[in-house]
Amino acid sequence: MKPLSSLEQLAEALRRLPGVGPKSAQRMAYHMLQHDREGAAMLGRAFNQAVEKIQHCTSCNTFTENPLCETCMDGERDATLLCVVETPSDQLMIEQTLTYKGLYFVLMGRLSPLDGVGPKDIHLEKLVKRASDGVVAEVVLATNFTNEGEATAHYISETMKARGLKVSRLARGVPVGGELEYVDAGTIARAMLDRRAT
Amino acid sequence: MKPLSSLEQLAEALRRLPGVGPKSAQRMAYHMLQHDREGAAMLGRAFNQAVEKIQHCTSCNTFTENPLCETCMDGERDATLLCVVETPSDQLMIEQTLTYKGLYFVLMGRLSPLDGVGPKDIHLEKLVKRASDGVVAEVVLATNFTNEGEATAHYISETMKARGLKVSRLARGVPVGGELEYVDAGTIARAMLDRRAT
Repeated sequence: MKPLSSLEQLAEALRRLPGVGPKSAQRMAYHMLQHDREGAAMLGRAFNQAVEKIQHCTSCNTFTENPLCETCMDGERDATLLCVVETPSDQLMIEQTLTYKGLYFVLMGRLSPLDGVGPKDIHLEKLVKRASDGVVAEVVLATNFTNEGEATAHYISETMKARGLKVSRLARGVPVGGELEYVDAGTIARAMLDRRAT
Repeated sequence: MKPLSSLEQLAEALRRLPGVGPKSAQRMAYHMLQHDREGAAMLGRAFNQAVEKIQHCTSCNTFTENPLCETCMDGERDATLLCVVETPSDQLMIEQTLTYKGLYFVLMGRLSPLDGVGPKDIHLEKLVKRASDGVVAEVVLATNFTNEGEATAHYISETMKARGLKVSRLARGVPVGGELEYVDAGTIARAMLDRRAT
């Protein structure tokens, strides 16, 4: 077998990206070399730099270039609250609401036994250690409201309660602006059960 | 404004890939850093190497790491035939049919005035020079049978004929295995006009 040419190597490497098959990979390689060499050079640099610099925050497990991420280093935050999210994007969404001033723990995934993702893959040991620092008083579970996210929340909840920590979960209910006619029955059922005195 | 972190730079660079928007770019960046660092390092190397090494063949204009590509260096090929294709993938498809033993010219695009792609962008001057080498006797147009491909073929055909070269075009007609009931009327009309004595 002939060794792969630089072009074939590039197409092969592009297939490692999620959602990119052989045809797209080839199209991407051709496009970048034909129409955007500057972008190709940027991508080369960006990948090398990211691999070299990006680590996990020793405290909250998110991506960071320093041992501690910016959020964890922020002394203004309420260290008694620890919000558990699946991904850095989820953390960003919560930050944008400006309703939460505590710290975070980013699982970088969710429990998914069918895909072979167990407690170890979502860094549960690190989370337990983090939550048991004596300062954290409440763990706020903000995993997704999908089956896997709910299972993850349940599992973490049990683990935390066994250690005597207070655990809460984001409220479920009718979305803001939601019309009952178009909201699914499961959501309305949950909103009815969780109804609040006004 | 804060300078972008390595992660943001990577997501930004990934948006340069065709068909990748901001959400996909972020998802790709997270995925590669979380689950496939080896792939990320491969991508970094592959992009750098491709940008550094890949040039256009001085004769046929395809991608190559040497001044002349392998096909153009192959002395066994029929240098009197020059097949014009839009992309290296098209060339590869024709090669796989084993029906053509001549040389190629790869336009690396197609005429598309609406997108601002003119004769210069598809290297027509280089093609004219290549076809006028005194050896090429017939130019075989194998651009796509799309509106743009047909327009490109027509334009090249006129240019070549003005220089006294023989020009041909791949035959149009009913695809092999095609059932008339499911073939579009335009194709059947063309197959009827181009019908051949058996």
